Amino acid sequence: MRVQVVEKILNANDQVAGLNRVKLDEKRIFSINLMASPGSGKTSLILQTIQGLNTRMQIGVIEGDTAPVTIDADKILAAGMPAVQVNTGGECHLDAVMIDRALNALPLVNLDLVIVENVGNLICPAAFNLGTHANVLIASVPEGDDKPYKYPNIYRGLDVLIINKIDLLPYVSFNMEYFQQGVELLNPGLVTFPVSCKTGEGIEKWIDWLQLRVNQQKAG
Amino acid sequence: MRVQVVEKILNANDQVAGLNRVKLDEKRIFSINLMASPGSGKTSLILQTIQGLNTRMQIGVIEGDTAPVTIDADKILAAGMPAVQVNTGGECHLDAVMIDRALNALPLVNLDLVIVENVGNLICPAAFNLGTHANVLIASVPEGDDKPYKYPNIYRGLDVLIINKIDLLPYVSFNMEYFQQGVELLNPGLVTFPVSCKTGEGIEKWIDWLQLRVNQQKAG
Repeated sequence: MRVQVVEKILNANDQVAGLNRVKLDEKRIFSINLMASPGSGKTSLILQTIQGLNTRMQIGVIEGDTAPVTIDADKILAAGMPAVQVNTGGECHLDAVMIDRALNALPLVNLDLVIVENVGNLICPAAFNLGTHANVLIASVPEGDDKPYKYPNIYRGLDVLIINKIDLLPYVSFNMEYFQQGVELLNPGLVTFPVSCKTGEGIEKWIDWLQLRVNQQKAG
Repeated sequence: MRVQVVEKILNANDQVAGLNRVKLDEKRIFSINLMASPGSGKTSLILQTIQGLNTRMQIGVIEGDTAPVTIDADKILAAGMPAVQVNTGGECHLDAVMIDRALNALPLVNLDLVIVENVGNLICPAAFNLGTHANVLIASVPEGDDKPYKYPNIYRGLDVLIINKIDLLPYVSFNMEYFQQGVELLNPGLVTFPVSCKTGEGIEKWIDWLQLRVNQQKAG
């Protein structure tokens, strides 16, 4: 009985996620679901991406927060891109219905790319399809090298992995080989970009990947 | 209808939490619920605590993980203390029933202190009373100074805040005043210990606090 209810909720979410995907595809907008622990650098990566693209494309950002704070959304607006803040009201993840409403609040007709910044959490977001085209996770060097082993579900569903804060590698204990072995077991051949949002190192390759996918979506 | 079901679940949890508390009080064991983001240093703090106490007390550790991995529990056992691993099966927090079962698996009669290491998450654990005596959160310097503003619920329910990885302060942008202002708004006068689990700085004051509370619980 209880399992059946959960199944119905997931199906409803998947149905709305499908509609979100149709809406984005019709407008030839590429979209990513950006996930990470709290403080791994999700907003910093978006800001570096906006800066690195240097007006080559228009990006709409959906900011998920568990509380009614606009700290991150304000930073995106200050960087010159449209942003919508979604307050989950304490929920530990975004869902497809929230994204549907947020997409309606963005000027989609002008956009090339939509970035959804999910709630800072390595568990709940993994279970909810939003309708976006690619799942991207930021792993942060100071979080430690054992995260793939401890949070396997989120790694299994990824299209891209970003390893952020590589500028801190000299100051923390992080065995890159052990980390990447864990990732490889869960998601063989996963596209991975080591970066530092602080120094800008590695950001260019991430932007190249993004530009390629945006161009492919434009070409249809 | 749906709200009523949620209320019943919470009440059941609180009821079991109450029984956990009685069990711990009867054996005069002090207990803490240790919460944090993934990779903030929960296990490192426990290991530093075991080392710093230098056999002055016996500590039982309950390790919460979303996957069947014993990485953390193995470290505790290697440090000479009993540990139980609880696999939440994908759930984003521990609950009182899991703690009840874990307490039954620990040699309580020999213990002075039980430390529960919750799942790495700043949202879900805040909503579930485990029956422990004190809620302790580790905030990690590289996570950034805006976390109290973004995850207010977990800060509101705290008895102690530990600010870990202060050795990284020279290498990251972290405004301690802004951080502590946010905390003060949510939880005025909160007992706070800045520490580095890497260098051992500040650990002594945390251990003094812990020793005092363990002694008070022994005295009844």
